[in-house]
Amino acid sequence: MTTAQTPVRELAFGELYARVQNFYAHHMHLLDSGAAAEWAETFTEDGVFAPPSAPEPIVGRQALTAGAREAKARLDEIGEQHRHVLVSLDLIPNDDGSLTTRTYAQIIATPRGGEPRLFLMCVTYDHLVFEAGELRVHHRRVTRDDRP
Amino acid sequence: MTTAQTPVRELAFGELYARVQNFYAHHMHLLDSGAAAEWAETFTEDGVFAPPSAPEPIVGRQALTAGAREAKARLDEIGEQHRHVLVSLDLIPNDDGSLTTRTYAQIIATPRGGEPRLFLMCVTYDHLVFEAGELRVHHRRVTRDDRP
Amino acid sequence: MTTAQTPVRELAFGELYARVQNFYAHHMHLLDSGAAAEWAETFTEDGVFAPPSAPEPIVGRQALTAGAREAKARLDEIGEQHRHVLVSLDLIPNDDGSLTTRTYAQIIATPRGGEPRLFLMCVTYDHLVFEAGELRVHHRRVTRDDRP
Repeated sequence: MTTAQTPVRELAFGELYARVQNFYAHHMHLLDSGAAAEWAETFTEDGVFAPPSAPEPIVGRQALTAGAREAKARLDEIGEQHRHVLVSLDLIPNDDGSLTTRTYAQIIATPRGGEPRLFLMCVTYDHLVFEAGELRVHHRRVTRDDRP
Repeated sequence: MTTAQTPVRELAFGELYARVQNFYAHHMHLLDSGAAAEWAETFTEDGVFAPPSAPEPIVGRQALTAGAREAKARLDEIGEQHRHVLVSLDLIPNDDGSLTTRTYAQIIATPRGGEPRLFLMCVTYDHLVFEAGELRVHHRRVTRDDRP
Repeated sequence: MTTAQTPVRELAFGELYARVQNFYAHHMHLLDSGAAAEWAETFTEDGVFAPPSAPEPIVGRQALTAGAREAKARLDEIGEQHRHVLVSLDLIPNDDGSLTTRTYAQIIATPRGGEPRLFLMCVTYDHLVFEAGELRVHHRRVTRDDRP
């Protein structure tokens, strides 16, 4: 881990790319496993999540936690495990040290005792920032392929 | 971005790997969003694309543009959004600075107002080259899992 | 490939991350293409694979080879191609130079002449080690989303 102390602005592209991929894996596993408050902590304090299904954006960790908790409770009720898989990362490092990303998002649903299915295909547009060396989602917008 | 000026032959494996992943994300998003000419620009001028569905390989940017445009027009007609997701990248750097890659390719189709489905599962074999520091597809061959 | 001679403990996170992703792509392609003995070689000599479907863990290369060969023979009989896609890699480098990973695993099945389908959605927990500079699976545990 030779680059742990390197200022983020001096990180090579490959280093940034891996850190973002690892961040997304961790971030989505928290959501999928129902760790709602820990998931909200991976947003900035004033983080914004504009999902396609909500009438208006969800803002701030408290609202993010509540939203994730409610979504998980609904899935537990119907006995489904969801997995959010972010692939095809397109990463643009910005001059201010923040990152602009676009990913394809597969949401996969598996009912207890049943076969998995591709539930939603989305595109996710993020603005990520580093806070004390840790990546955080500052702003997220998601579009659904079934609603062009 | 400390490695921006590093000759590609001296790039570490992780740097190459990230650049190829990022290239594929950008490349396929151009195709999926109907930017046919821009997509063709990510091939070399004499780039070859040998898809499993075409009777013979498509050669050169003009033919690539026409093919991508036609495919997108057909999808627009039936109201479907396709996504080409390249995963499981196996990357071999060659002595001449070019790259040999193999990826698993998922093609996901989502009809307007409907559920997404896994449309095709393929394996993609590429020969990539750097032109003025930018990755380009020099040769692509694709096989389909339903036609062994 | 400037880092080829760098001791693995000094590798940057991005370098490790890319190597693990590339390893998984190679490892799973061996399994999916029926190269059972070569696949078993990507485990340590005493490697353990605890799949959700087996009554007890499979231990050692001989047993791993036999298991992979049998699974491939069954798929050939029914004319299906399976693909194991490991995504959403969460990588933790350990102090002893080994790696702890978690990935989401999609198993995609395509029948000859038919449409692909998402066959299983799993989570894979690995302990990886370097042997003479090469990654090897030392221990693998897999859980299925349909069996919570």
